[in-house]
Amino acid sequence: MSNKVTKNEALDYHRVPTPGKVAIKATTRLESQRDLSLAYSPGVAFPCEEIQANPELAYEYTSKRNLVAVISNGTAVLGLGNIGAIASKPVMEGKAVLFKKFAAVDSFDIEVDETDVDKFCEIVKAISPTFGGINLEDIKAPECFEIERRLIEELDIPVMHDDQHGTAIITTAALMNAAEMMGKKLEDMKVVVVGAGASAVACSTMYKGAGIKNLIMCDSKGVVHSGRSDLNKYKQDFVTSEATTMEEAFTNADMVLGLSKPGSFTKELIALMAEEPIVFTLANPTPELFPEEVREVKPKAIIGTGRSDFPNQVNNVLGFPFIFRGALDVQTKKINMEMKIAAAKAIAELAKQPLYPELKVLFGDLTYGRDYIIPTPFDKRLMVEVSAAVANAAVETGVARVKEFNLEQYREKLSHMV
Amino acid sequence: MSNKVTKNEALDYHRVPTPGKVAIKATTRLESQRDLSLAYSPGVAFPCEEIQANPELAYEYTSKRNLVAVISNGTAVLGLGNIGAIASKPVMEGKAVLFKKFAAVDSFDIEVDETDVDKFCEIVKAISPTFGGINLEDIKAPECFEIERRLIEELDIPVMHDDQHGTAIITTAALMNAAEMMGKKLEDMKVVVVGAGASAVACSTMYKGAGIKNLIMCDSKGVVHSGRSDLNKYKQDFVTSEATTMEEAFTNADMVLGLSKPGSFTKELIALMAEEPIVFTLANPTPELFPEEVREVKPKAIIGTGRSDFPNQVNNVLGFPFIFRGALDVQTKKINMEMKIAAAKAIAELAKQPLYPELKVLFGDLTYGRDYIIPTPFDKRLMVEVSAAVANAAVETGVARVKEFNLEQYREKLSHMV
Repeated sequence: MSNKVTKNEALDYHRVPTPGKVAIKATTRLESQRDLSLAYSPGVAFPCEEIQANPELAYEYTSKRNLVAVISNGTAVLGLGNIGAIASKPVMEGKAVLFKKFAAVDSFDIEVDETDVDKFCEIVKAISPTFGGINLEDIKAPECFEIERRLIEELDIPVMHDDQHGTAIITTAALMNAAEMMGKKLEDMKVVVVGAGASAVACSTMYKGAGIKNLIMCDSKGVVHSGRSDLNKYKQDFVTSEATTMEEAFTNADMVLGLSKPGSFTKELIALMAEEPIVFTLANPTPELFPEEVREVKPKAIIGTGRSDFPNQVNNVLGFPFIFRGALDVQTKKINMEMKIAAAKAIAELAKQPLYPELKVLFGDLTYGRDYIIPTPFDKRLMVEVSAAVANAAVETGVARVKEFNLEQYREKLSHMV
Repeated sequence: MSNKVTKNEALDYHRVPTPGKVAIKATTRLESQRDLSLAYSPGVAFPCEEIQANPELAYEYTSKRNLVAVISNGTAVLGLGNIGAIASKPVMEGKAVLFKKFAAVDSFDIEVDETDVDKFCEIVKAISPTFGGINLEDIKAPECFEIERRLIEELDIPVMHDDQHGTAIITTAALMNAAEMMGKKLEDMKVVVVGAGASAVACSTMYKGAGIKNLIMCDSKGVVHSGRSDLNKYKQDFVTSEATTMEEAFTNADMVLGLSKPGSFTKELIALMAEEPIVFTLANPTPELFPEEVREVKPKAIIGTGRSDFPNQVNNVLGFPFIFRGALDVQTKKINMEMKIAAAKAIAELAKQPLYPELKVLFGDLTYGRDYIIPTPFDKRLMVEVSAAVANAAVETGVARVKEFNLEQYREKLSHMV
């Protein structure tokens, strides 16, 4: 069956059997008067009093332990732009059910009708006791940077803007494998990032964290270089003196990461790149360039897109469910760079493992190589590998609340949750 | 098995099998790459665009259609007082699962760490697009009145503070039946309300709406009478010139409603009441007076408490799940007095119907009379009777969004949801 979906199919999917995609279920018995007395008054007073005395016990007696909020104000939804809070709800519900499906993380979506940074932060802070973690989603740049920074600083639960870091983590994994395949060191590579929005800034930051030294960012006006006076403070972190034109930027570049829109760079620019370049064209649903266009000028390129109908799909679902799974399981206070790098490495490593039979049925006998540099979203091993790597990094960097952590036991536990 | 629960039992119930009582589930298929393309990008863009063009379509394509938020700031939780947002979470989760269990309403709990009325209202308004209705819970008086008033006025989804109106609706149902049993008309009755908090004010307002003319409210300082200068504006609505002492208030009274604390009135005061009085002692878990104490001085009294181990348990779960069920199903903008009265009447009527076999097994062969004036929470007929009455009243008073409503068809649909 094709992955192409029509409008009617998509609308029906959201209407049948019931409106929307997410529902609630009770996890405890609720059949008798006695059950009521345990779940509600008078029994419920006991866990309330315990938590009042020690708020950390909310992790023991409430759903907070496994609960992530997917929060958006609908200002930058998919390729649709600023469609507002309520219109973003199908996307946020979708994210919530992906959390559940892929990593058994319970997740509510909350659509917040507020675009002011201060007020938005106040609102999220006020409702944050409810949750064990917060996944910010589809909030426009540059506001998303300040919102995420402030919430990370002021809350003691993990907060992550997935549009930024999800993409950064997955493309870092792909970059690590592609570089290894070509025998290049990250510190020697020249990388061009086309796009200067939320994900472009996060990818650029993470690439630098991973070892990339020569990185050239391009926005809609061209190269972000030191001669420009129209740059916001986030772009200013990436000004280059290596190039002033797109041609200069692409010449001998080892990688281009497209996070922009169709047509924002051409195959003539790709032709200027190194012989075996990495070309990620992630504009969705239509990539900046299609794989066949790239291959015309660079037959040996390693190509990735955001689409499931081409090889090497860069899909955030490889990351966020397991990053929060690991974060929740060690009750981390933050998601730091070490945890993100650990996630990227775990994803990269998994691509080197042979597929198991069930996956071969779904995807054919993919083997590690140019057309398979990152795992598929349905690889059930992601749960163990990524979650365990993230949890372990949290413990090692001292941001986890749990005092006792045994990596092997945790991996074993995860393997039973798949 | 006794309904009495120990601390350890209650804590275990909240810890096993997983922390808390509520989880998420996906309602649609999510097994293949194609399912992903429907639930998330690119297919999800279609319902987003539909909702952007017409926000009412959120009722068709998202969980908003069946979703109620249980929202508290933890300032007046059960008998525990102001225990704060996070410590209130077990109660709010409990309420959420009761919504699901009794009326198939999906419900999230949101704990809001904010006590300022203006800010609290702003926060709830900002997150309100997420939900089809809002159940405010355990917010202290007098702030709860202003918060509820403002949210009802400013939002176009049903908002109800259940501590106020749930108790009011159930005790109104009980009052209607008790009055009928004794052959008294509501307009001739003398009613004493002991307590002047959220539920007392709401009960008093509803009793007046139902026809009670002579109502005397008492707070911790005694009768709320016209000679007092220490009354807030909510109590001022109930000043009486009929009595200045508790003795005067109770003399020949037909009903006392206790919403206070153990010992706030004595059996000596009960002895002053009419020969067959209605005595509701709803302080929880310990009532103002126990039934046997009341019966010592008024053997023919009709007695109700908040406890499941005595007859006539006044339990809000008889109301809120079905009130929101009906409100959601006709997409009402408000819950008005007519809807609440309709709910009370439907609850009252149901007590007059014979029990069905399954209920007899649970509760014995209860028949309508002094010891059975309101139904039990496990009476499955509440779903049809109360929800249909509420939905119908919403349609008739013009607050429903749905254009076509057929009461018989709706009752039929509800009967299949039980």
